[in-house]
Amino acid sequence: MTRWLDASEEQVWRDFLQVQRRLEVSTGQQLAASGLSTSDFAVLVVLSDVPEGRRRAFELGRELQWEKSRLSHHLTRMQRRGLVLREDCGSDRRGAYIALTDVGRTALEAAAPGHVEHVRSRVFDVLSASQVEALGEICTALLASLPPSPPPAPAQECCSPDE
Amino acid sequence: MTRWLDASEEQVWRDFLQVQRRLEVSTGQQLAASGLSTSDFAVLVVLSDVPEGRRRAFELGRELQWEKSRLSHHLTRMQRRGLVLREDCGSDRRGAYIALTDVGRTALEAAAPGHVEHVRSRVFDVLSASQVEALGEICTALLASLPPSPPPAPAQECCSPDE
Repeated sequence: MTRWLDASEEQVWRDFLQVQRRLEVSTGQQLAASGLSTSDFAVLVVLSDVPEGRRRAFELGRELQWEKSRLSHHLTRMQRRGLVLREDCGSDRRGAYIALTDVGRTALEAAAPGHVEHVRSRVFDVLSASQVEALGEICTALLASLPPSPPPAPAQECCSPDE
Repeated sequence: MTRWLDASEEQVWRDFLQVQRRLEVSTGQQLAASGLSTSDFAVLVVLSDVPEGRRRAFELGRELQWEKSRLSHHLTRMQRRGLVLREDCGSDRRGAYIALTDVGRTALEAAAPGHVEHVRSRVFDVLSASQVEALGEICTALLASLPPSPPPAPAQECCSPDE
């Protein structure tokens, strides 16, 4: 017996999808002015989150929720543009590090002010303080019901069973 | 002077992005069991929304927030699989209709129960009634600040200035 959505739930769900679609497009258009795609920007943000500016490929994939092949292809393109660098780990079998380059950090720093202004004007300026708080609680609840998708264990990146 | 997000706004924004990423992946995985991608499903839903089961290409693009080329390529693939049909409009210059086929409607009807159960269990079961209401109000506010991106006028699809 399917538990269909009632009319108001359906409306909320459709509006939620539409918000995501419009945010994706408007964010992409805004970032394009800085020569970055939304995907580029997301990778750079995740790398810049740690002081050393580099993370394991599988950590990036888990954070971005990208499949290995999508991640790999995108990182190859970013590496060609000098935004990131793949660093082999030698004897460490947990896979390559992806490191932010100076070019990547500069590109991120150049794009960030415009991006943040865009997010602020389209999202945070539009919501009341209590709505922002409610949105935070809603997201926390949803994240608890939506486990991250690619397996979090580094074993996927590893070619040896004795890790 | 950049109006940076404060720590709690930044957390809300990151969680919101992470919710979108995880929902996209989990929805895609769930729909794959029915042989449809998230994009296929979205197109079929938009077409099935109207009693006649067909809409102008530009209307589809506006609803899905897809660029013309993405829409066109995806519809070509769906047409090959028999899910939709392009119908020329003859003298009408507002562009082609995209119509749901019987195969497309059957595929949608077969996928819908599992999809709705997924959305219900991951989203609506997890939120309180007041959170669902708050989410609806938040989405309404955000949609007002995010105009649909592709120009809504059918002129883009049209090759004549005397439309």
